Amino acid sequence: MDIPLPAFPPLSETEADTLIRDMGARARIAAATLAQAPTARKADALQRAATLLRARAGTILAANADDMARADAAGMADAMRDRLRLDPARIEGMATALEAVAALDDPVGRVIDASERPNGLRLSRLRVALGVVGIIYESRPNVTADAGALALMAGNAAILRGGSEARASNAAIHAALADGIEAAGLPRDAVQMIPTSDRAAVGALLRAQGLIDIIVPRGGKGLVARVQEEARVPVLAHLDGINHSFVHASALPAMAEAIVVNAKLRRTGVCGATETLLVDRGYGHATALVRALLDAGCALRGDADTRALDPRIAAADASDWDTEYLDAICAVALVDGLDGAIAHIARHASHHTDAIIAEDGAAAERFLAEVDSAIVMWNASTQFADGGEFGLGAELGISTGRLHARGPVALEGLTTYKWVVRGAGQVRP
Amino acid sequence: MDIPLPAFPPLSETEADTLIRDMGARARIAAATLAQAPTARKADALQRAATLLRARAGTILAANADDMARADAAGMADAMRDRLRLDPARIEGMATALEAVAALDDPVGRVIDASERPNGLRLSRLRVALGVVGIIYESRPNVTADAGALALMAGNAAILRGGSEARASNAAIHAALADGIEAAGLPRDAVQMIPTSDRAAVGALLRAQGLIDIIVPRGGKGLVARVQEEARVPVLAHLDGINHSFVHASALPAMAEAIVVNAKLRRTGVCGATETLLVDRGYGHATALVRALLDAGCALRGDADTRALDPRIAAADASDWDTEYLDAICAVALVDGLDGAIAHIARHASHHTDAIIAEDGAAAERFLAEVDSAIVMWNASTQFADGGEFGLGAELGISTGRLHARGPVALEGLTTYKWVVRGAGQVRP
Repeated sequence: MDIPLPAFPPLSETEADTLIRDMGARARIAAATLAQAPTARKADALQRAATLLRARAGTILAANADDMARADAAGMADAMRDRLRLDPARIEGMATALEAVAALDDPVGRVIDASERPNGLRLSRLRVALGVVGIIYESRPNVTADAGALALMAGNAAILRGGSEARASNAAIHAALADGIEAAGLPRDAVQMIPTSDRAAVGALLRAQGLIDIIVPRGGKGLVARVQEEARVPVLAHLDGINHSFVHASALPAMAEAIVVNAKLRRTGVCGATETLLVDRGYGHATALVRALLDAGCALRGDADTRALDPRIAAADASDWDTEYLDAICAVALVDGLDGAIAHIARHASHHTDAIIAEDGAAAERFLAEVDSAIVMWNASTQFADGGEFGLGAELGISTGRLHARGPVALEGLTTYKWVVRGAGQVRP
Repeated sequence: MDIPLPAFPPLSETEADTLIRDMGARARIAAATLAQAPTARKADALQRAATLLRARAGTILAANADDMARADAAGMADAMRDRLRLDPARIEGMATALEAVAALDDPVGRVIDASERPNGLRLSRLRVALGVVGIIYESRPNVTADAGALALMAGNAAILRGGSEARASNAAIHAALADGIEAAGLPRDAVQMIPTSDRAAVGALLRAQGLIDIIVPRGGKGLVARVQEEARVPVLAHLDGINHSFVHASALPAMAEAIVVNAKLRRTGVCGATETLLVDRGYGHATALVRALLDAGCALRGDADTRALDPRIAAADASDWDTEYLDAICAVALVDGLDGAIAHIARHASHHTDAIIAEDGAAAERFLAEVDSAIVMWNASTQFADGGEFGLGAELGISTGRLHARGPVALEGLTTYKWVVRGAGQVRP
């Protein structure tokens, strides 16, 4: 959501292009330095930024109070206001997150593979920085620190465009990050923030082919859809998480209940939440399973067979199988064994995260092999779909695309590779 | 180049979309089978196709004769006619190429990495097929076999769109491929060929988001540029190869001459050919070096300092540093040491392949680290930039993009990965 800021006159398309071209050119220069920067220097920059965030907590909170006052005046919804709000704990959280990114293994320079050819040429593939990363996000100010830090640690320059409603908070956080970077001897342009809330600047960023190597949108579906529609630059995006938990006939009832309740209800608003429960017709404890969800406060929507299990289950319509509720609502269907589950998932999943609960290892392995999703799970809650839980230390997002990076995207997803060939004078016959 | 075929009435946009939607839906069904197909079955399909190509050489040559007759009637240029022409040796070459792809290591199912989390979750990343690959190419009929085979061996379904001038040859080759696939028990729709030369079908392919996972254009700059401009589907593209060979002050003169002459002149029309020679001002044998090229029949275009080396060197204008000649022409510049070379390359390279010739290992390592190209080489000819030379067995092309795949793209570049999580009932706290 963008609240118009009357202080900024609207930019023309040409002015926006000029602004982004200038920022992109400075980012490209910074990126050349960052690509070669030693791990310790990048980590030092982030540690200094963390220290500055803590030291400037008062300034940052004051800036955030300005944003909150504007939000109040504009009648912003409570959920949005909560995302926008900073407090000392959230500032400490940002600082800790910067330190955590600083402690991650640096992917840059890592050897992916190496070989020697019969003619003596020695080949290797090395991880290198991607270049210039554009990050477009909405109201949470902590993304300024998190996303900037991940891009930097992977050796990239970043151009950030936060939500206009958070502009004062973002500016204060960005200043701490840029000061930390500069204090560590790295170029201040390593992390730039677009200085206007004008939407024309987003358009210019999205068409900046050759200046921006990748755009990462972080926010709601409206933002992601706009970015995907307009972008002429590659986009690393996260769309829906229409995730399934399938309880196979062989599942242990206690495990199935515990996993399903957690997968659906631990946090309903996260992209790893289960949205559809599939129950094998051969599973003998379906009634207890759906009651566990109902009793925990979850609304269920099912087909006729499922509704016979408990009168509290409402009738599903066709759209329910394709809906990401992000709420305490779950679609439920009975399916004919593993094949029925795989077919349902192939038709309706968004290919984010899908899980099987089963004691039958052969069935589970078939599910893991045949379900074509970024993350497939056996006997675990879909809510584990998270870069932190995967040991990646942090995540910029979860990619639902199939190219470049799939699933949680952290440092490695912000790199590419180069081929290095070492010879002794070989010429090609 | 498309020669209009009056036999085909033009398709409307809607008809083209319907055609591609139907092919895409059949490809998606085939892709699900291919993604799970064992290596031996995919290899068997390609071996059978190779046998059929040989057995049907007469039919294929007759079809090619039809294409050649139309080409003659249309006054096609000799270079194009040579690309279009098949003979028994070229058919044998296609069959051998299919067998070579069949013998490659299958990337599908390969474990990229694995870890165990403190909570006992076991994670791994597995290579999986990309899905449906669209391949758009021009006059060489052998691409039908090569590209279809690479896509299939990596577990993908392919939709091919060859040049209209090769339509009879392509149809005959495609029939052998599809028959081989079917004989091996795999779906015939694994490799489909768009049955019309209508350009509207290309447009429909390029906007088939959700049906086609990636488009690979193989052909001249006009084709690649059109695909990149129009595509709403991700594109794996190869643009210019403005490649540099830099002769450092420490280079051995004999090695430098041998490498530079090979890099420029072995074959001038390939994307790995050197287009600009950079000579360190500190290199003591510059005159002999440029004369080696001139005496071998290469035209040189240089700045004033370079022209002083030999009167046969013509004056370069600003555009020469950004030109991919694909001919026996080379731009030459004297540069101030390693820094001068790196700066020139950063400004003018297309980031395809750049090489240093040097005995000074520290200088070479700096070059390899700092030059931001898909392939960087030390003491070797840039003409080695080729999937076969890199041991990849074959290549679909060389990617000059930074995302997903960089440099030679073979089987691995036609895959993505999935995360597999194995638990024992873990729920997320």
